[in-house]
Amino acid sequence: MSNTTSTDIDPGLLAGNRRALAGYAATHFRWDVQGAVATITLNRPERKNPLTFESYAELRDLFRALKYASDIHAVVLAGAGDNFCSGGDVHEIIGPLVRLAAPELLMFTRMTGDLVAAMRACPQPIVAALDGVCAGAGAIMAMASDLRLGTARSKTAFLFNRVGLAGCDMGACAILPRIVGQGRASELLYSGRALGGEEGERWGWLNRLVAPEALLADAQALAASLCEGPTFANGITKTMLHQEWAMTVDQAIEAEAQAQALCMLTNDFRRAYEAFAAKQKPVFQGN
Amino acid sequence: MSNTTSTDIDPGLLAGNRRALAGYAATHFRWDVQGAVATITLNRPERKNPLTFESYAELRDLFRALKYASDIHAVVLAGAGDNFCSGGDVHEIIGPLVRLAAPELLMFTRMTGDLVAAMRACPQPIVAALDGVCAGAGAIMAMASDLRLGTARSKTAFLFNRVGLAGCDMGACAILPRIVGQGRASELLYSGRALGGEEGERWGWLNRLVAPEALLADAQALAASLCEGPTFANGITKTMLHQEWAMTVDQAIEAEAQAQALCMLTNDFRRAYEAFAAKQKPVFQGN
Amino acid sequence: MSNTTSTDIDPGLLAGNRRALAGYAATHFRWDVQGAVATITLNRPERKNPLTFESYAELRDLFRALKYASDIHAVVLAGAGDNFCSGGDVHEIIGPLVRLAAPELLMFTRMTGDLVAAMRACPQPIVAALDGVCAGAGAIMAMASDLRLGTARSKTAFLFNRVGLAGCDMGACAILPRIVGQGRASELLYSGRALGGEEGERWGWLNRLVAPEALLADAQALAASLCEGPTFANGITKTMLHQEWAMTVDQAIEAEAQAQALCMLTNDFRRAYEAFAAKQKPVFQGN
Repeated sequence: MSNTTSTDIDPGLLAGNRRALAGYAATHFRWDVQGAVATITLNRPERKNPLTFESYAELRDLFRALKYASDIHAVVLAGAGDNFCSGGDVHEIIGPLVRLAAPELLMFTRMTGDLVAAMRACPQPIVAALDGVCAGAGAIMAMASDLRLGTARSKTAFLFNRVGLAGCDMGACAILPRIVGQGRASELLYSGRALGGEEGERWGWLNRLVAPEALLADAQALAASLCEGPTFANGITKTMLHQEWAMTVDQAIEAEAQAQALCMLTNDFRRAYEAFAAKQKPVFQGN
Repeated sequence: MSNTTSTDIDPGLLAGNRRALAGYAATHFRWDVQGAVATITLNRPERKNPLTFESYAELRDLFRALKYASDIHAVVLAGAGDNFCSGGDVHEIIGPLVRLAAPELLMFTRMTGDLVAAMRACPQPIVAALDGVCAGAGAIMAMASDLRLGTARSKTAFLFNRVGLAGCDMGACAILPRIVGQGRASELLYSGRALGGEEGERWGWLNRLVAPEALLADAQALAASLCEGPTFANGITKTMLHQEWAMTVDQAIEAEAQAQALCMLTNDFRRAYEAFAAKQKPVFQGN
Repeated sequence: MSNTTSTDIDPGLLAGNRRALAGYAATHFRWDVQGAVATITLNRPERKNPLTFESYAELRDLFRALKYASDIHAVVLAGAGDNFCSGGDVHEIIGPLVRLAAPELLMFTRMTGDLVAAMRACPQPIVAALDGVCAGAGAIMAMASDLRLGTARSKTAFLFNRVGLAGCDMGACAILPRIVGQGRASELLYSGRALGGEEGERWGWLNRLVAPEALLADAQALAASLCEGPTFANGITKTMLHQEWAMTVDQAIEAEAQAQALCMLTNDFRRAYEAFAAKQKPVFQGN
């Protein structure tokens, strides 16, 4: 006969599920943590920071781990040198792919898709810092980020059709139209042409234009400012932006009623009210 | 044995279901009717027109009643003085909320969500007139309107994260991205920053920039011009913008085929044709 | 007992399913083919190229046939003279419609909706060339195209409410908001007002502004440039933009993993890689 009650839940189970990632030792890119902001730097500047099978897999695993991280509350995604990312390496990725059969190809496209899924599923807002070349899978990673800062000289190209492929890579046909509109997304995906920085800001692709020398610091400052906010609630914002993607308006309203009621039970909500009553600035703690 | 036929339907049932709202006596805001245009004015200008539990509930009930109103064909939503609405009152709403338990909180968030649902479900196009502060629930009511006129000095802030909450309030994570794009909506919801009038026009948040002294009159003139159109058909336009939110394109096409065929059976459609044939301007009657 | 194997599939079945359309003899519009680009020209310039029951039906059938066409890889949609299309002819369409009953009206609205469905279902990207009047069903055909070039003097009007109807025509309440945003689409559909060329470019309705005398040639050059790309993959891009319309992000990612894996099995993907390795420009063949 069972007498299990809720008090039987081992708090260690939850504790064990949470990981501190500040000390993570990255293999295929740089991982730097300052406060609650982690910066991922794609780091093969002599090749414009291409992705490889290994870096794809490590990025996917890292973003999956971030879902349970207790110490990181925002992520900056950047490239070393003057470029963001040139996409899948021609020799290390495209070369092997042309020799694979259907099952292996699907294994590959599912892995890359899982990277985008993991970026959307982790609660941390992701700020992409775009300079120079931002192409192919690089453009996709920028698209899968929450916010994008970029330079006037940045060039974003969904250039899949230039390599004989379709624009439907890692969610682009669903996500890009919601960022820049269906007509402009169609143009980028059919033509593969590069979108410059000023045009990108005008289209809502970039949230802000930044000078190249200020780009990384500004992206990190933006991420840090988000970490000063109610980080649990920020994570719920991100979750709901994802959850409500294909809901009806009425479904979304009910989903938000539940999610926001949950946030109203956090201490951060009370802290904000008490700070306001005391004419002070609230200090949020993410719970 | 039943011999009920369609002629047994009591026309009084339909008549009784329709309400004239021109004479409605509002308690928690102003309600002024000119022709078929009703203007709701949030009216606590010394506090920048905050919402209270009571005004939320009355607004929800009024927009629900508008679904069956026979005499109002467009609604203007405005604020007294130089501001639109500062959102939920800190003392009258946020204070009590921090002391409530989950069931009561969900009751509250469902009530506020029901206001947005009612605004989207009534057939009247809603024109928001935005000046000065448009914050929190005020920004949400503007978002839930069909059209937005605003001044250069208007400041729209989805500032939920500033009070420790998530951006997912009353449908914002679903609706705002469809108005301004996913990237810009993310920025507003994560940061809570104010969107100025000129930027808002550039983003498609505002349909038009208007001088402060002309704002209310221009909003009412726009609403009146919609009332001169085929108001039954306008209501179907609003219904379908809502219905098709999460349909596939092919489902939407079939839904519109049915809805438009219905409109082709109205007298307004015939009136338009006859006026055109007679080289006159059609006079629509909303049936 | 069956011993059917896959080798029993009659290749003639597939071959017979593919049609060459270069020689198609159009009745109600012009059909000109240059290379793999077909240009449809609505050709009643003295009436600003209105549609009739017959031209609707022929357009629907032609776009349906294009789904299986082997020789046409992009379509340009244009109007003769200085206008694109004035929509459904008042005398030849609207006049008869006001006398029809519900079943016939639904038959009509389903036929027009089927035109949009066929335009979205064929694999060829459609480039609309918009000059002068682009109204009613003309605006819808432009909306149902993939890319839109237009002149500064072009005037796009979803003027259904001007003729007593709702804005929900042929998918407009679903598609237009995804192109220009929900607020701007609402304004166009409720008011029926004309959208000028410069405003249209600013809103993302037009991909590019072009001088009137260059419009057709530029649209054809853009279509030709798409034909130089991997046309099988371009068709998959179009299909997925359509398929993913109402999917969740995670569903879209899986759908794209499958679709892109399929494209990686084409020779065009291999051709691109080999050309890159040889420092040459790839020559795609659409398979």
